[in-house]
Amino acid sequence: MFGVRLTIAYDGAEFAGWARQPGQRTIQGTVEAAIEAMNGAAVDLRGASRTDAGVHALGQVAAFDAARDIPPFGWVHGLNSELPDDLAIVDAAECREGYNPRFDTRAKTYRYVVLRGRVRDPIARGGSWYVGQRQRTRGLDLDAMRDAAARMIGTHDFQALRAADDDREMTVRTISRIELVEGWAGDERLLAIEVEGNAFMRNMVRIIAGTLVAAGRGTLDPARVSAMLTATGRREDAGPTAPAHGLTLVSIELGRVPRLTE
Amino acid sequence: MFGVRLTIAYDGAEFAGWARQPGQRTIQGTVEAAIEAMNGAAVDLRGASRTDAGVHALGQVAAFDAARDIPPFGWVHGLNSELPDDLAIVDAAECREGYNPRFDTRAKTYRYVVLRGRVRDPIARGGSWYVGQRQRTRGLDLDAMRDAAARMIGTHDFQALRAADDDREMTVRTISRIELVEGWAGDERLLAIEVEGNAFMRNMVRIIAGTLVAAGRGTLDPARVSAMLTATGRREDAGPTAPAHGLTLVSIELGRVPRLTE
Repeated sequence: MFGVRLTIAYDGAEFAGWARQPGQRTIQGTVEAAIEAMNGAAVDLRGASRTDAGVHALGQVAAFDAARDIPPFGWVHGLNSELPDDLAIVDAAECREGYNPRFDTRAKTYRYVVLRGRVRDPIARGGSWYVGQRQRTRGLDLDAMRDAAARMIGTHDFQALRAADDDREMTVRTISRIELVEGWAGDERLLAIEVEGNAFMRNMVRIIAGTLVAAGRGTLDPARVSAMLTATGRREDAGPTAPAHGLTLVSIELGRVPRLTE
Repeated sequence: MFGVRLTIAYDGAEFAGWARQPGQRTIQGTVEAAIEAMNGAAVDLRGASRTDAGVHALGQVAAFDAARDIPPFGWVHGLNSELPDDLAIVDAAECREGYNPRFDTRAKTYRYVVLRGRVRDPIARGGSWYVGQRQRTRGLDLDAMRDAAARMIGTHDFQALRAADDDREMTVRTISRIELVEGWAGDERLLAIEVEGNAFMRNMVRIIAGTLVAAGRGTLDPARVSAMLTATGRREDAGPTAPAHGLTLVSIELGRVPRLTE
């Protein structure tokens, strides 16, 4: 068997998320089917991140064990010719058999894009959350958002900032960076919220974005963020879950990546 | 009757172009239906530019005569609540009754976006033409493209750079600017070709883009551009028609805009 690690990009709009589900169009299921067409045998594709339905990716990482010895560029171009337009293999590399990127993830970077302005935008709509308001062109208080973001940096109990039905017990995570980028992609109406951390719980980045936007709109006092990031924090203390289509998994920083040549 | 001038944005992917056609989803037909729902009477929406199926717009301009005296912001927000996600009214203004922006157009600016790189991109795919090649990351000779573009600037007979079935007799047009913008929208793989001129024939911007890309790929000698822009130029002298989805009508510069207050 030959270990192969893939970097995958997708437009999440028409996918029911990463994880394979019977009767659903998923990233994992679609890529596995393409691999199997080249490989001649079933594979289990091990993804680093289980992105939600509607979430996009530029740098998802996944690995599988191939029955055939195909060079990395052969996988890239062969799979891309099998895959639909909204999904592509960006890169491939050899890795050891059984390699699971989920257990080799040092950090992940997500980008949440918010669209301001007096009216919605048909072209930007697929990749941004429209938060504009009729009365105000900008509509968001960036200072309040930066204040709220600064309080999230560091190691905290993020149990208030995860999906209400997520019941895992370890809820302490470390956020190393939250950066607000005005004029993202050269468009002054777009505000990108870049979030980097060691690990994230379900909906966590979307709730971070929803909480920052609530602070920017003046409906949530940034000072309240410090209190919600404790063992007594509750989901209702935080802002709403921002819609999936504004979120992109940008990149995954892997740890010591094992190679066949070692 | 009250003249109203609209600025319209759309994602062209799911439209059969601007012009109303029975049984087709068109921009003109969709906006007219929304206006009629507010206006209580049928209208004829006069567009400045008949964009092709698949072509996008940030600043299409159109005008109609309303039976009801609704203020401009009322049209913007009322129509946007009626219109589908892929179409929006960006702005509205009063104008004289019967005003037709087609006869009041000084210049139009189009943007054609090309995607380079080793692999296609699922997220950028809706707004760009993928011209990447396996062997070369960049793949396009920008100097050759700029040479070809410079030869198009000015007043020429553009009969070779229009749809083969376009049979109008006046084929002289003036192109005032063609600019190549590398790293468009902050993405180094994207190359924007911005084209400004006084008027364009059918498919003309797409053939300009296809001709520049052919020059960039080395399949068309830039020096040949000067010869094709004459009264003996033929369609087959120019490059291919670049696909519609890479093209956006960015803005229309109107002449002396009549106002009710005059």
